[in-house]
Amino acid sequence: MDDCIFCKLANGVFPSATVYEDEAFRAILDIAPAHKGHIILLPKAHADNIYSLDDAVAAKALPVAKKLAVALKAATGCDGVNILQNNEPAAGQTVFHLHIHIIPRYADDGILPVWPQSAYDDGEAADWAAKIAAAL
Amino acid sequence: MDDCIFCKLANGVFPSATVYEDEAFRAILDIAPAHKGHIILLPKAHADNIYSLDDAVAAKALPVAKKLAVALKAATGCDGVNILQNNEPAAGQTVFHLHIHIIPRYADDGILPVWPQSAYDDGEAADWAAKIAAAL
Repeated sequence: MDDCIFCKLANGVFPSATVYEDEAFRAILDIAPAHKGHIILLPKAHADNIYSLDDAVAAKALPVAKKLAVALKAATGCDGVNILQNNEPAAGQTVFHLHIHIIPRYADDGILPVWPQSAYDDGEAADWAAKIAAAL
Repeated sequence: MDDCIFCKLANGVFPSATVYEDEAFRAILDIAPAHKGHIILLPKAHADNIYSLDDAVAAKALPVAKKLAVALKAATGCDGVNILQNNEPAAGQTVFHLHIHIIPRYADDGILPVWPQSAYDDGEAADWAAKIAAAL
């Protein structure tokens, strides 16, 4: 898309700190990292978000993210890695070209706290599961 | 693995609120959800985390997560979806069988805040990118 900055970064029209590139993806450093080394993996073909991501591209993404997570851990000496993909503003998406965050984490860094945990009443979980399954 | 609860849930040894199942995965409701409908996608074959996930399983995971995200949005009417996979305790992993969270989000729910953003000095990002690329 002509006005999409991540299209331009993914396809090398704009420069970036590139970590990895293949025919379908470019992985670059997030310019506003959670920690140094924080990677975003960008498909070269535009998709707004996961809902419209081409299945063939989706199939290639996680093996690449895995490889990047292993390399990130080796290069940074971090204690853990989050792989995070946000869809729509309510979920924290701010650039509307699908991207996968690969974030180095350190013990007790507190940057991505665990969410407050809710619970289900008896039978309620089965009802929700059936409702979601029916939408598949 | 004999003592892995997610192996037992994924393979139907323990009951769960199952949303989806195929030969490689079972998707169930998280019993302590961020919001009702919060799904975890479990590979049936044990892997502690992304570092050791079989590439063939990794290739199948994101297309399934995509399908689940679309269905979750339709079923809950949520405003967004996070796809999150945590590796090691420092990253929030509490059960050591790889799982992918698919979390419905609502505007301003505040459950997964954006991390504090850092920045790179001149040239520093290129150095980090080279260091990670060298570890690939």
